[in-house]
Amino acid sequence: MSIITLITDFGTGDYDIGVLHGVIWGIAPEAQVVNLSHDIARHNVLQAALVLERAVPFFPPGTVHVVVVDPGVGTRRRGLAACLDGQYFVGPDNGLLTPLLMRARQKSARVEIVTLDQPCYWLPVVSPIFHGRDVFTPVAAHLANGVPLSAFGSPVSAPWLVEIPQPQVMEGGWRGSVIHIDAFGNLGTNLERQHLPQNAAPQLRLCSETIQGIVRTFGDGEPGQLVALFDSSGKLSVCVVNGNAAQRLQARVGDRVEMVDAS
Amino acid sequence: MSIITLITDFGTGDYDIGVLHGVIWGIAPEAQVVNLSHDIARHNVLQAALVLERAVPFFPPGTVHVVVVDPGVGTRRRGLAACLDGQYFVGPDNGLLTPLLMRARQKSARVEIVTLDQPCYWLPVVSPIFHGRDVFTPVAAHLANGVPLSAFGSPVSAPWLVEIPQPQVMEGGWRGSVIHIDAFGNLGTNLERQHLPQNAAPQLRLCSETIQGIVRTFGDGEPGQLVALFDSSGKLSVCVVNGNAAQRLQARVGDRVEMVDAS
Amino acid sequence: MSIITLITDFGTGDYDIGVLHGVIWGIAPEAQVVNLSHDIARHNVLQAALVLERAVPFFPPGTVHVVVVDPGVGTRRRGLAACLDGQYFVGPDNGLLTPLLMRARQKSARVEIVTLDQPCYWLPVVSPIFHGRDVFTPVAAHLANGVPLSAFGSPVSAPWLVEIPQPQVMEGGWRGSVIHIDAFGNLGTNLERQHLPQNAAPQLRLCSETIQGIVRTFGDGEPGQLVALFDSSGKLSVCVVNGNAAQRLQARVGDRVEMVDAS
Repeated sequence: MSIITLITDFGTGDYDIGVLHGVIWGIAPEAQVVNLSHDIARHNVLQAALVLERAVPFFPPGTVHVVVVDPGVGTRRRGLAACLDGQYFVGPDNGLLTPLLMRARQKSARVEIVTLDQPCYWLPVVSPIFHGRDVFTPVAAHLANGVPLSAFGSPVSAPWLVEIPQPQVMEGGWRGSVIHIDAFGNLGTNLERQHLPQNAAPQLRLCSETIQGIVRTFGDGEPGQLVALFDSSGKLSVCVVNGNAAQRLQARVGDRVEMVDAS
Repeated sequence: MSIITLITDFGTGDYDIGVLHGVIWGIAPEAQVVNLSHDIARHNVLQAALVLERAVPFFPPGTVHVVVVDPGVGTRRRGLAACLDGQYFVGPDNGLLTPLLMRARQKSARVEIVTLDQPCYWLPVVSPIFHGRDVFTPVAAHLANGVPLSAFGSPVSAPWLVEIPQPQVMEGGWRGSVIHIDAFGNLGTNLERQHLPQNAAPQLRLCSETIQGIVRTFGDGEPGQLVALFDSSGKLSVCVVNGNAAQRLQARVGDRVEMVDAS
Repeated sequence: MSIITLITDFGTGDYDIGVLHGVIWGIAPEAQVVNLSHDIARHNVLQAALVLERAVPFFPPGTVHVVVVDPGVGTRRRGLAACLDGQYFVGPDNGLLTPLLMRARQKSARVEIVTLDQPCYWLPVVSPIFHGRDVFTPVAAHLANGVPLSAFGSPVSAPWLVEIPQPQVMEGGWRGSVIHIDAFGNLGTNLERQHLPQNAAPQLRLCSETIQGIVRTFGDGEPGQLVALFDSSGKLSVCVVNGNAAQRLQARVGDRVEMVDAS
């Protein structure tokens, strides 16, 4: 029984996502299919790449992830299928895999990428504006059925990469940024434990606010208090206990966050 | 392994849709169930009928589609189960099947329709305000289990039909209308390739705008450009490249679209 | 084939819900998983408890319900797994099970509750802010695999309870309240048939409006008419035929509803 996840920027108000399920089950009738996210901001490849990076560790080996955030559909951009560290990925070659490729290379994990050039694994008619339905989803379903990656096309050595915002060293600490805002208004940053000052008296600055110290969990703050903690993916997160930090701070993805030594 | 799709006007903010899954799996534990759309405008039978028409070709034979857009629930309107061209449909007799019946008759495909008059296939207690849960979904689950259509009730020869907006001939071309607006603001019309002028210099007029020619894909236009193309279901669609045509043109379902010979 | 339902207050705009599916299928690859509701108001334990009470009767025996409405995550509140009347429940010990416990005791149904103190059934790393993913969902998946309830922890005799608003006797009838507003703006109350006046001429008062009598179904009223009927879960519901009662009456959960004898 194989798992296929779907990440798109379609929103959930239309029937396109249901149609993707139909295409999958027409090819792989027993696949488990989950809507991982359809609320990626339209054409926001970086956001989709970061969601994929955070979600993938919670899926078992062999899972196939289909990502349809595809501003270049109908142009000459390639389609890709990839195997990174035991899971599969199908989507346009526009940088969606960048964080996972970086992680796989750090771990020296196995990486195999092919371009999608074998139409026998696509729907018989391919619309120039919906490769998600006509190319990527059928390929994912055939992968779920056990077709080997090499069958879908020729090897790719240099997939397109996007720039991932990385924390920079600054005087007395590190300068990172907000990279994700969740449904509760919690601000996910790209700062991690490795960016903590050595003497363990961190001070966080963002959006004209200053936060002293890092708590372990929401229960360590008072309702309404602005706190920083390491979130469930190990990233430093800024939250209001029982409240909405994004609204309180008028924060947006891309906002600067500084972690410095306050001692 | 059978597939059941759900189309309703419930929205997704409540728990009713989850309950439909429970009812299905209580009867057909192995059915694959997908939410095709729950964002049909309330009581908009025509919209549900058009979504169904567009989605059905992407599902495999034997799929069971449950449609709960049911302004007449609790009145004397009948419930129906149907087999059209190899797929199954369950819902109220209010015209939901009109486009699929027209298509099946054009293809001389097999059509079989019964009225739901056999309560042994319903839940034991039927609420007068939720036949979706108590009648249609259980019938769909029994269909998925292989119960033959004829078991659910008496044959129906004249199901209720709704008027489907059809393009009309006008001087120099065809007059159609916007029949669907997707999540990206693309305007789907009821014009198709057969309505193109013979000499291939089409001009499109809608909402006080004029579009010259038809592009093949979004990549053939500039960002922000208003373009017309044949969408992934073969219908003429009006789009803003990387933008939202419905917002730009203040367009609505029902707006007139004219395709004429501009040469 | 086991069924797992998910009820959370996460909303549907993020990827967390998809991750819960990944965690489940990593442990129980064949489980059927359904999103019962992710639109519980944030931290609203009572709302989640009432949704659970209404939905549970439509799921088959052995279903596992995971409820992640967890304002106390990371504090010392316990996690629970329970078996009530043949179905399973996993979530924080904060009163979510109150209505189901009341019902099970009325029926003298079997009740078994344990606290979650066996980490071998959790993910290897438990975030202090996301027990839904790291504790509750894995436990649910192991339950779906057939691990007996007693394996997950020590018996609990006194789970946390919340106060459930109950109708009160008043002069000439009963005083209840609005306990649920559905996606159509229908107002669900906690009044039931047992609160009807004996002589069957009920009058309903809420939000400065008076409704005479109770109809059987929407079809018994005129479009736009304010009506009262017993909804599909047996509760008295106030609706506008083809309209939105919550908007019309500016009604909210908690508003008082009186049913009196008008004869």
